[in-house]
Amino acid sequence: MSVKNLASHPIGIFDSGIGGLTVTRALINLLPNENILYFGDTAHHPYGEKSTAAIQSYSLKIAQLFLEKNCKLILIACNTASSAAFELLKDYVGEKATVMNVIDPLVQQLPKKYANKKIGLIGTKQTVNSNIYKKKVDQLNAGIHMTSYPTNLLASAIEEFGNHEIVNDLLRVYLDHPSLKNIEALILACTHYPIVKDKIANFYQHKIDIIDSSDIVAEAVKVQLAALNLLNTEPSVRKDFYISDYIESFVTSTKLFFDEDIQLEHYPL
Amino acid sequence: MSVKNLASHPIGIFDSGIGGLTVTRALINLLPNENILYFGDTAHHPYGEKSTAAIQSYSLKIAQLFLEKNCKLILIACNTASSAAFELLKDYVGEKATVMNVIDPLVQQLPKKYANKKIGLIGTKQTVNSNIYKKKVDQLNAGIHMTSYPTNLLASAIEEFGNHEIVNDLLRVYLDHPSLKNIEALILACTHYPIVKDKIANFYQHKIDIIDSSDIVAEAVKVQLAALNLLNTEPSVRKDFYISDYIESFVTSTKLFFDEDIQLEHYPL
Repeated sequence: MSVKNLASHPIGIFDSGIGGLTVTRALINLLPNENILYFGDTAHHPYGEKSTAAIQSYSLKIAQLFLEKNCKLILIACNTASSAAFELLKDYVGEKATVMNVIDPLVQQLPKKYANKKIGLIGTKQTVNSNIYKKKVDQLNAGIHMTSYPTNLLASAIEEFGNHEIVNDLLRVYLDHPSLKNIEALILACTHYPIVKDKIANFYQHKIDIIDSSDIVAEAVKVQLAALNLLNTEPSVRKDFYISDYIESFVTSTKLFFDEDIQLEHYPL
Repeated sequence: MSVKNLASHPIGIFDSGIGGLTVTRALINLLPNENILYFGDTAHHPYGEKSTAAIQSYSLKIAQLFLEKNCKLILIACNTASSAAFELLKDYVGEKATVMNVIDPLVQQLPKKYANKKIGLIGTKQTVNSNIYKKKVDQLNAGIHMTSYPTNLLASAIEEFGNHEIVNDLLRVYLDHPSLKNIEALILACTHYPIVKDKIANFYQHKIDIIDSSDIVAEAVKVQLAALNLLNTEPSVRKDFYISDYIESFVTSTKLFFDEDIQLEHYPL
């Protein structure tokens, strides 16, 4: 197959639910020509409270689907799955496609601005307990001191309440935790959190940086595809959105994450 | 097989997670001789945001396991699964075991005290949208006016925060909803909610009844087993607790629901 044909193959993006649509939105804005296959594993949502083995097994099934659909690149658009299943998926997929996650592009940006500084991170229990951000940051030897705190209920609260005041109450409970004191930046290590980025910035009275990976990840995908000479130059012909369990309310929720109506197709894992 | 042998067969109890342990606790207190098999479908937890078809499929797999283990009675200890899968399970199980749910025993108690009164209900989105309580209550022709409101985040908030003040904040947001105004009683249609029964009673300044089904359901199981001459008269020899996905933190959470340490076994569906 020629490289030109391969460039038209879709990018496969998956998340435990519809939260990964925030990264997908950023990616489509930056690379409008790309064909997209999105998979939201709503049957197992949320991943944050599942075991590593369970998340690995779901991720493998989704990657298998993406390979059957000839994806040129697979993006794990979920911090929990990125921490639990990235190495495994890279091994499993091998040369058949490029596998990317939402953690590495962000970590690589950190030394420029935060060398020898203290930064915080919030994410699901799985993401925080995996300690994956801290391990990767420590490997950079940039003197970055990273602390983290699991904000388990935040993603569901955002899905249910959007910008309601109760989300502020919950944020206060979480962000007041001693482990997040005296930080100079906060990493939002979950695709849901950018939706309440303003509330989080307000909590810190805009005195610290709030780091959201969507645009950074989209840019990293562009760089990677360009390096492989796989950027699609023809107009996009397909953007498909699959979910492993279908309930009506997802249709309204997707707007929160994607800014426009999309057609969700039920595709059991 | 003699009835005496059959009486020693276990009661199978399942829930989407560990919340069903509240009913299990009540059942064991009332019927200490019974052998118990508990199944928490933690791989698909929570059921509240899953489709009817998905919940039916998980429930069938669990019922199949219970039949293989020779359960004499299957109790759906989850309101969401009771509303989505009870009729299906009864058909599927047929004469092989008695199937009970957590809704009918409670509804049957209502006319005694609440005829011609307005009562409220809180539960998951699935339970509330199914309208199953209202349908069953209306069939009683007791003039009970029932209203309900989905309190989607409450179960997870209780699991994470127990008795923290944020649970009060969340309760206020939910219970202040106009559809729950001027009620004379509130049904807690989720196995998690009894844990914050006091907080809910405080919200209503103890002026209305807070109805929790655990003891009512345990009593109904006793009556049913007695009618079938299947109450176990020998001391209990087994109480097994299976979960479809295993994470460490369940071990501490179970104490919240069960008041004592239990051994959780990983049993993928």
